[in-house]
Amino acid sequence: MKVKEIMDKEFIAVSPEDRVVDVSLKMEETRKFTTPVVDGDGKLVGWVTSFDVMRGLRDGLELVSDIMQPPERIVHVNENDPARLAVLETAHHKLVSIPVLDDSGRVVGVVRSFDIVETLSQLYEIKVSKIFEAMNGELKGVSWDELMEAAAIITRRRTGKRIKPKEYEERIRNSTFGEAIWATGGLEKFFVGLIAIGELVIARKIARARK
Amino acid sequence: MKVKEIMDKEFIAVSPEDRVVDVSLKMEETRKFTTPVVDGDGKLVGWVTSFDVMRGLRDGLELVSDIMQPPERIVHVNENDPARLAVLETAHHKLVSIPVLDDSGRVVGVVRSFDIVETLSQLYEIKVSKIFEAMNGELKGVSWDELMEAAAIITRRRTGKRIKPKEYEERIRNSTFGEAIWATGGLEKFFVGLIAIGELVIARKIARARK
Repeated sequence: MKVKEIMDKEFIAVSPEDRVVDVSLKMEETRKFTTPVVDGDGKLVGWVTSFDVMRGLRDGLELVSDIMQPPERIVHVNENDPARLAVLETAHHKLVSIPVLDDSGRVVGVVRSFDIVETLSQLYEIKVSKIFEAMNGELKGVSWDELMEAAAIITRRRTGKRIKPKEYEERIRNSTFGEAIWATGGLEKFFVGLIAIGELVIARKIARARK
Repeated sequence: MKVKEIMDKEFIAVSPEDRVVDVSLKMEETRKFTTPVVDGDGKLVGWVTSFDVMRGLRDGLELVSDIMQPPERIVHVNENDPARLAVLETAHHKLVSIPVLDDSGRVVGVVRSFDIVETLSQLYEIKVSKIFEAMNGELKGVSWDELMEAAAIITRRRTGKRIKPKEYEERIRNSTFGEAIWATGGLEKFFVGLIAIGELVIARKIARARK
């Protein structure tokens, strides 16, 4: 996934000659805490946060050029960079938004932290049953019921708790990947549990084929 | 994971009687785009964003009580809620921060979108080799080299590209879970690939045991 797939193209942009009070109204109206400052060609020449605007309003500074941060201090990404670069920069610098440039230095979008949260959380919101369905599709010759039975056996071996295959099935239909990771104690442990289930059904399948 | 494990406890809080200009200085100094408004007991009575402060400065409103949003309009979570609730609220309402309350309604922290990004992205930054190591630990009687050999075979079957076991090993040591998911086209596809590799090594292990 590339930066351009997660960026907001409906960003606002202001000019160094704009009045601070007008920018403040524009930011409030569009609910943007930050805005890129661009020249006539759309190239990034500055960055304004609502902290800069507050300072401008407080100290009576009139123009965007009086309050903006210079381009060399702005954390930015290229539209063709991997999306995870924007994720890492956001987390590392604790930013709410990052301007996105094209190869000629023009601003083409803004990546916002809550959009990243949405994108990342979609992965977590996948139902665990979807992963089992994919597993079931891959393991030719193993039925869904056999898979659930193996899952119930592995669960009992690992937790000591008896669970019926139907109960296991209901549980994975109602729980998400994110919940499962947190419940099992991490991604690796979650995968290890799935591999154990896979190992059991494969062993049974092979044993059956040899009969 | 609970909300209290991902919240920022070093938040600022202001009082309804504080002056807007002082709050603006405090927010700028601490780089906070939002701040909870609390009463003498620390209970949430309002919420101020930098949009409210800008408006106050522009329109000459003097006190926090003149600019704050009423408590009934504030999206908040409880410290004991599951962390994913804060994640979902952040993404759904496109918020940069959410106040966290204890059972008595006192503000005990703030969840910020970039902290969520950091927490979520840590999962993505796990090396793929860690997942294979966990798999290898689970599959008793299968060596690491056998696992890499099976991975190289499955990769060739699926992509048509020849890859040596050593090259595969190098690849998974350098790539993360996040990159692997994006490269394979999603969590389910990534997992299906792992299961295929698991199936091959298990079948070989069983065949060897029967010899």
